[in-house]
Amino acid sequence: MYKINEDYLKLQGSYLFSTIAKKVNAFAQENPDKKVIRLGIGDVTKPLAPAIISALHNAVDEMGNAETFHGYAPDLGYEFLRNAIAKNDYQDRGCKIEPDEIFVSDGAKSDSGNIQEIFAKDNVVAICDPVYPVYLDTNVMAGRTGAFDEAAQNYKGVIYMPCRAENDFVPEMPKENPDIIYLCFPNNPTGAAITKEQLQVWVDYANKIGAVIIYDAAYEAYITEENVPHSIYECEGARTCAIELHSFSKNAGFTGLRLGYTVVPKDLKCNGVMLHSLWARRHGTKYNGAPYIVQKAGEAVYSEEGKKQLKEQVAYYQKNARYIFDHLKSYGYEVYGGVNAPYIWLKAPNNMTSWEFFDYLLEKANVVGTPGSGFGKCGETYFRLTAFGSYENTVEAMERIKTL
Amino acid sequence: MYKINEDYLKLQGSYLFSTIAKKVNAFAQENPDKKVIRLGIGDVTKPLAPAIISALHNAVDEMGNAETFHGYAPDLGYEFLRNAIAKNDYQDRGCKIEPDEIFVSDGAKSDSGNIQEIFAKDNVVAICDPVYPVYLDTNVMAGRTGAFDEAAQNYKGVIYMPCRAENDFVPEMPKENPDIIYLCFPNNPTGAAITKEQLQVWVDYANKIGAVIIYDAAYEAYITEENVPHSIYECEGARTCAIELHSFSKNAGFTGLRLGYTVVPKDLKCNGVMLHSLWARRHGTKYNGAPYIVQKAGEAVYSEEGKKQLKEQVAYYQKNARYIFDHLKSYGYEVYGGVNAPYIWLKAPNNMTSWEFFDYLLEKANVVGTPGSGFGKCGETYFRLTAFGSYENTVEAMERIKTL
Repeated sequence: MYKINEDYLKLQGSYLFSTIAKKVNAFAQENPDKKVIRLGIGDVTKPLAPAIISALHNAVDEMGNAETFHGYAPDLGYEFLRNAIAKNDYQDRGCKIEPDEIFVSDGAKSDSGNIQEIFAKDNVVAICDPVYPVYLDTNVMAGRTGAFDEAAQNYKGVIYMPCRAENDFVPEMPKENPDIIYLCFPNNPTGAAITKEQLQVWVDYANKIGAVIIYDAAYEAYITEENVPHSIYECEGARTCAIELHSFSKNAGFTGLRLGYTVVPKDLKCNGVMLHSLWARRHGTKYNGAPYIVQKAGEAVYSEEGKKQLKEQVAYYQKNARYIFDHLKSYGYEVYGGVNAPYIWLKAPNNMTSWEFFDYLLEKANVVGTPGSGFGKCGETYFRLTAFGSYENTVEAMERIKTL
Repeated sequence: MYKINEDYLKLQGSYLFSTIAKKVNAFAQENPDKKVIRLGIGDVTKPLAPAIISALHNAVDEMGNAETFHGYAPDLGYEFLRNAIAKNDYQDRGCKIEPDEIFVSDGAKSDSGNIQEIFAKDNVVAICDPVYPVYLDTNVMAGRTGAFDEAAQNYKGVIYMPCRAENDFVPEMPKENPDIIYLCFPNNPTGAAITKEQLQVWVDYANKIGAVIIYDAAYEAYITEENVPHSIYECEGARTCAIELHSFSKNAGFTGLRLGYTVVPKDLKCNGVMLHSLWARRHGTKYNGAPYIVQKAGEAVYSEEGKKQLKEQVAYYQKNARYIFDHLKSYGYEVYGGVNAPYIWLKAPNNMTSWEFFDYLLEKANVVGTPGSGFGKCGETYFRLTAFGSYENTVEAMERIKTL
């Protein structure tokens, strides 16, 4: 008799955003007259920029013509896209990353879930608390953790690094040495940023103890302050200890188009084995490349026209972020993030738990946010709002919250 | 110090098709005057059908408009596509499969690689020999096999089921009971088909011993004979023992567009746990859905216009398959497949090994095929040609082979 992967059964509840979607759908069905404003899941609302739409149409035409049809894509992604990424996201910023160190994929969620596969099961993983659930859940599913401890509200064998107001939501070095460290800055869910000096300390630490950092830079386009790094490779020594994940979802609105990439520098080695080779092998064996038309859309992100249009699009969401931040503050909320990130992290009022505030906000203001406790124990009593709604909805949501 | 997944190091060489691509590129660079005809990798050459191109353009326009923009897709895929699949591929054929048992993905390669994750590490896997490398390699990478045994030319702990001319390339029940059985019919690489009666024996066997069958139906559109099943769910009892994988690559030319789906019936349970729930959890945690525009293209595959156009497209490749089959036979080759599949499986002449024939064919005829030994020990001395070239190239390739 075959057996299932029992590690899956250690998972607590369903995936956070699936749970929220179900709750919101139920509320909407019971209250068809109420206009629900969704500032929960980090999904964008602006349509794709004209430069991207145009690139998509052109690529679709190519696919309809025998001379220009594209079948299977190269394993790592098309060169035109990898070259554009290497130049714009790295070399122009002074980071030494070559095109063949870039792996194009169908998005940072897939990559952040799959990357743990190239590591042994008995590595010790360190994550921030609160954290994007995918880092933790995929390690649970891979058997890299013990069971969930109900009393402690955490998985055995995982190093949780608390991120609280006291440490500006930037974790401190753990007491026990981890093998794999997940960092995400600008942070999801807290919206906190890390300075270049603070990140350099982590890079030095990882190189010293022989740990690998998985650095999620999905929100780098939202950085507004000078001393906040856009890439971990701005730090010296990162090429020997860090993998970086990138998304096209938040800088270019590709949530429904699916495109991302992962950087694995060739200097990143474990006893002489390049992690680059392992990830290449995974890509080649379990994946068949992002669609040609989507990679062409990705190329347009880096065109002069695309850059200009996307700068405006990001500015639109940044304006929402500041609007939420400023208004909640003026209403007396304890509020964080929103300056270098599209997320606003607030403390639930009146000693409510995160889910209590979720239900309260949905019922009373018909506004959907994300309960902080869904991101981990240290997220309890916190709440996340996103800047990805329309400006009009953002303003209306703040009006509604004001009257609570 | 972190450690890598040592199971990756058990893998032999690089992914087969990457190796072939490198060899062919090297030859093409050294011989810029030679016109190479590629009948190796199973990549299609016809452009996307007009109905699909039209659906793509419409969907791209929707993505450029705030009112019709689509962000994150539902976890399992859009209902419009799952409904079309359930109706056309199952219910119309008398198979009881519901839309919510269908998981839309970026292709059958990803799914066939990822599906093993929901099973325990200590399951015993049975594969055909020769076999599509992904089934085996992904189990090696997951640590579900022992080391590669050079002398025996196989991985310890894996049940290999020889498929040879003597058994019409349909495997026999293994002596030892497996837990997970991979079957692919019409078969890649041999092009062999299985009758409904033969498949029913496998379903009964799996239900009896408590094994799960992972059934790859990627090539079902190429079936021309009556008694060959298009789905394993045509067999009684398959809902309690079988997962089915489907591709849009071969029936609709989506190799560069990326779309597939996996069926996990809700009756498929292991000690009361639905595999459907486990796969849903994997989908929700590690994947973020196929692009909206690609799912709209998938919907067009099932439109009246799409069906008509794709029937012609498949017929074009079927004609190539018969052309290759008939001509190789008339040249005196020992040749199989080609009737219910886009693959032709031939015996290398003059006692050549598969790779010797690969080099010979590339050098002398400038035709690229796939060495049978790349699919397993029992593929040695065999060779695979595909019907996915243009008719003109197929004819020319046969002319060249005729003169060898």
